[in-house]
Amino acid sequence: MRAVDIIMKKRMGGELTKEEIHFLITGYVDGSIPEYQISAWLMAVYFKGMTFEETGYLTREMIASGEVLDLEGIPGPLVDKHSTGGVGDKVSIILAPLAAACGVRVPMMSGRALGHTGGTLDKLDTIPGFTTEIDIKQFRSNLMGSGMAMTGQSKEVVPADKKMYALRDVTATVESVPLITASILSKKFAEGAQSLVFDVKCGSGAFMKNMEEAETLATSLVETGRSLGRKVVAVITRMDEPLGHMVGNFLEIEESIDCLKGKGPDDLMDVTYRLTAWMLVAGGICSDIDSALAMCREKIESGEAWEKFLLNVKEQGGDPEALQKGYGTFRSAYAVELKAETDGYVQEIDAFETGMTGVMIGVGRNKTTDNVLPYVGIELKKKCGDEVKAGDVLCVIYTEDEGKNADALAKMNAAYKIGPDPYVKKDMILKEIKAI
Amino acid sequence: MRAVDIIMKKRMGGELTKEEIHFLITGYVDGSIPEYQISAWLMAVYFKGMTFEETGYLTREMIASGEVLDLEGIPGPLVDKHSTGGVGDKVSIILAPLAAACGVRVPMMSGRALGHTGGTLDKLDTIPGFTTEIDIKQFRSNLMGSGMAMTGQSKEVVPADKKMYALRDVTATVESVPLITASILSKKFAEGAQSLVFDVKCGSGAFMKNMEEAETLATSLVETGRSLGRKVVAVITRMDEPLGHMVGNFLEIEESIDCLKGKGPDDLMDVTYRLTAWMLVAGGICSDIDSALAMCREKIESGEAWEKFLLNVKEQGGDPEALQKGYGTFRSAYAVELKAETDGYVQEIDAFETGMTGVMIGVGRNKTTDNVLPYVGIELKKKCGDEVKAGDVLCVIYTEDEGKNADALAKMNAAYKIGPDPYVKKDMILKEIKAI
Repeated sequence: MRAVDIIMKKRMGGELTKEEIHFLITGYVDGSIPEYQISAWLMAVYFKGMTFEETGYLTREMIASGEVLDLEGIPGPLVDKHSTGGVGDKVSIILAPLAAACGVRVPMMSGRALGHTGGTLDKLDTIPGFTTEIDIKQFRSNLMGSGMAMTGQSKEVVPADKKMYALRDVTATVESVPLITASILSKKFAEGAQSLVFDVKCGSGAFMKNMEEAETLATSLVETGRSLGRKVVAVITRMDEPLGHMVGNFLEIEESIDCLKGKGPDDLMDVTYRLTAWMLVAGGICSDIDSALAMCREKIESGEAWEKFLLNVKEQGGDPEALQKGYGTFRSAYAVELKAETDGYVQEIDAFETGMTGVMIGVGRNKTTDNVLPYVGIELKKKCGDEVKAGDVLCVIYTEDEGKNADALAKMNAAYKIGPDPYVKKDMILKEIKAI
Repeated sequence: MRAVDIIMKKRMGGELTKEEIHFLITGYVDGSIPEYQISAWLMAVYFKGMTFEETGYLTREMIASGEVLDLEGIPGPLVDKHSTGGVGDKVSIILAPLAAACGVRVPMMSGRALGHTGGTLDKLDTIPGFTTEIDIKQFRSNLMGSGMAMTGQSKEVVPADKKMYALRDVTATVESVPLITASILSKKFAEGAQSLVFDVKCGSGAFMKNMEEAETLATSLVETGRSLGRKVVAVITRMDEPLGHMVGNFLEIEESIDCLKGKGPDDLMDVTYRLTAWMLVAGGICSDIDSALAMCREKIESGEAWEKFLLNVKEQGGDPEALQKGYGTFRSAYAVELKAETDGYVQEIDAFETGMTGVMIGVGRNKTTDNVLPYVGIELKKKCGDEVKAGDVLCVIYTEDEGKNADALAKMNAAYKIGPDPYVKKDMILKEIKAI
């Protein structure tokens, strides 16, 4: 077998066999196939795509390139959720204890902020004492205790993905649906998840700007999962305005606490309930989505989800009392208000613009090496559909650098659109694609 | 400027600027841009193409990567011809002395046999004493003497092309029209040609199997030449049956001698006259194709082209007397005849099959490191349109290995198609595309 023939086959639009993908990926990892052949192949994949079976083979080979987290002996169901990234997306922080309260074990692997989107790990880091850097022993112990473990990607899993992602980054081959699919699935399965639920966000604040793009990725994730014999559900959710009222790091922890206490905003809870419910179905806890949704609501109302959250905070070194004292008091140096200039209804809060405002004031980062600030952020006092009078506060921006206040206000002013007509609320759940 | 942005721009179908192509090629040659980025870019070019202006910029950068042959002080016009490769294609050996006899100086850079096609250098090597490995001093001296110099590509010119071709070869990016165009043009211009005439062969024995492919390449060569301010003519010629009667190395020298003495077959002379005539027009010797054709015929009839050939043989170390003694006597060990099984007319002699028969018996090579044999080959006694009776000799196959005779006969038997209907002769010149 020769790499050049495999590249040629893909260039001509052919479907690669399991053996060909094995040859390519093992050769790449052991260095016998040079990077210049892999990058040519990646570009051919960008243009010619891969079938779900090919993507499944690639996923398997990437998993096989490293260690797989040893969750032997931990009774299932082990289900994780992954979001493609949005603004104000604190769903994981609510969903993990909620799913755990329902009987799912959640080996949750999250990321850090990059681009206009926030990162779950950055948010969790603002909980006093909390660490997401836990070893496998602690990971297992949490899964057996609270039923949830919150961590980043461990170094040992899927080295082929790390190597390939770095190569894609410098060869303009990141935006390829099958490559994205194999990258995500390989990491999730290597970290111990048996089944997966995806939150594929769609809209101005998402990476997928329209339904066609979102459906393509959702279908690829689900069908590749099916080809691997896994239960996978993808829920395409609206990401036009930021999710909930808070965009920030500690600010989003506060809003998550509200949600766990039954006081969450509708848009955020709609998405959280739906995703969690599918985890219950995928994990075999519930037989249908309606009974699963009912169980989720009940576990919020009963306080059991909140209890799971507090237990996990303790397991991961956090201090629940300091956290609760910080609620409403951990604030940045400056708080500036954006006020409405006219009467009307909020028609739009551009999520991308809001996310970029966040990046500017320190919620997120431009480069992976940038630091984020814990207490800065944006509190959206008015959301789409809310009626406003001229002079009403639309949002409060929390910053640590007075010099950025004017720019931040201008950006948020551009993000808000106020119009005279009443606004018709839109469904948060746009579409569901399932292999279950 | 970053290579990844240039790759992305091309991946999205954008047109690269002169500066971007300069950045890429100089960075590639000096090693500051790694091969894995170049190969991703090459694959993006394969899928998205390049405009003629971009191809022109690439050609310029490739020329600038090395030395340009110093033909300073040699009075023009300097015109070369390049063929995309065919079977029985000995045009260069006739055309170069003919053009020289008409007043063009021909710095001819030829190649060796590869695949099913023969190589001019391999044919010239069978002339007793003749060498194509001449230095720049000899090259200049020949151009001032006979007016023609026959050589292979020198090592110093266009190192970027050598490096890039090797990379394309292992990354399945050879078959890209703009990359092929820049590779050919850069080498030809770096070797001193001012204007160029292309023989773009089309048919079973050519690399371009149909008119669409041939026109695409011809247009790219001509229009890229135009963007560089050069005179370039591409003649698309028929390559369905082998050109002339001889396929071999010394056999083709013999047929070239026939042609130079005015006894060449029509198909071969039609192509040779047309290409040479365009060299005269491109070089400004003649103002139109008809007067150029008339001059070409006159220089064959007068014997001046034949004299130029003999002079060049001497200049390049060859022995004209030994050559003329060898004519008709330098033969391989075996000569086997293929006879017609039925009466009829020759409808087809598959040029690809004939070329592959040649490769099998040693006319050509499977790998660049294979040796070729001087005296083996195929003499086509009957060509398309000839009437045959059962038992007539269709062709004679000359071999050095008796064990290959049966296979060679079988292959040539498959190449010949005899049918009952008279055959309508087809024009050899299919189309002409000009920047003149």
